[in-house]
Amino acid sequence: MTGTRVAVAGTFGPLHDGHRNLLGTALKYADEGLIVGLTSDAFARASRTREIPSFEDRRAALETAIADLDDWGREVEIRRLTTEHGIVTDEPDIDALVVSPETAPELAAINETRRERGFDPIEGIVAPYVLAADGERISSTRIVRGEIDEHGRIRE
Amino acid sequence: MTGTRVAVAGTFGPLHDGHRNLLGTALKYADEGLIVGLTSDAFARASRTREIPSFEDRRAALETAIADLDDWGREVEIRRLTTEHGIVTDEPDIDALVVSPETAPELAAINETRRERGFDPIEGIVAPYVLAADGERISSTRIVRGEIDEHGRIRE
Repeated sequence: MTGTRVAVAGTFGPLHDGHRNLLGTALKYADEGLIVGLTSDAFARASRTREIPSFEDRRAALETAIADLDDWGREVEIRRLTTEHGIVTDEPDIDALVVSPETAPELAAINETRRERGFDPIEGIVAPYVLAADGERISSTRIVRGEIDEHGRIRE
Repeated sequence: MTGTRVAVAGTFGPLHDGHRNLLGTALKYADEGLIVGLTSDAFARASRTREIPSFEDRRAALETAIADLDDWGREVEIRRLTTEHGIVTDEPDIDALVVSPETAPELAAINETRRERGFDPIEGIVAPYVLAADGERISSTRIVRGEIDEHGRIRE
């Protein structure tokens, strides 16, 4: 037991093996529970032009993936995330945030806000990228574009 | 048990509360052992103009700090680090590297080398900075300059 309460956040749609790796890492370390911040439709769509599956569809796919990946019987709570640093700057009792290499630089601002609010800073756990068959990373954008499938296989 | 074999690296001299936080984080997650890469004198001095305590002095202080911080009875091995990405790119059986926010960007290059060598990429665990009494971070450079002590207290 490391006594770690973990958070992870994202849009998770379409869900792919990069997300699964992020969730698997989060579950592995979350021996005191995992909070998954799932972006609201409004928040997810505000920064993107591509189509985003609905919150309920994304939540259902997320629940299936978590059930598949959870080898430890972790306590998992999915919450609606409506702002970039929501949940992790509002909850004192989080120890670590699992992030992709792309979002790791956000940790500094998150911890600055936490310190301002009198909360302890949190650790960041950076899960490595999962690469597609072409050696580029798997992303929902690439899947929506039709370049790869959710496992990173090239679509012709 | 998360089954995590952890590495951490640094010069650790003069040892301060930021190092202690890094080591405490590493120990917490290292349920399958911790490798501490301690820079050789030649490597530590190559990139710095300030005085660096000798390897043996740094190793002794490190061992004392680890004994103080190890609440879990972890298996710990201190090794001499002679190149920037040594140990973590040479050892297949490492799962995570504990880093400061400053060195977190190195993870991408480390994992690129690991993938080239056929090793699994590793997770990065980013321990937050520890702040001195003036709100700036604690660093060995600041201690050597006489600005703060090893606990971040201001020296007048």
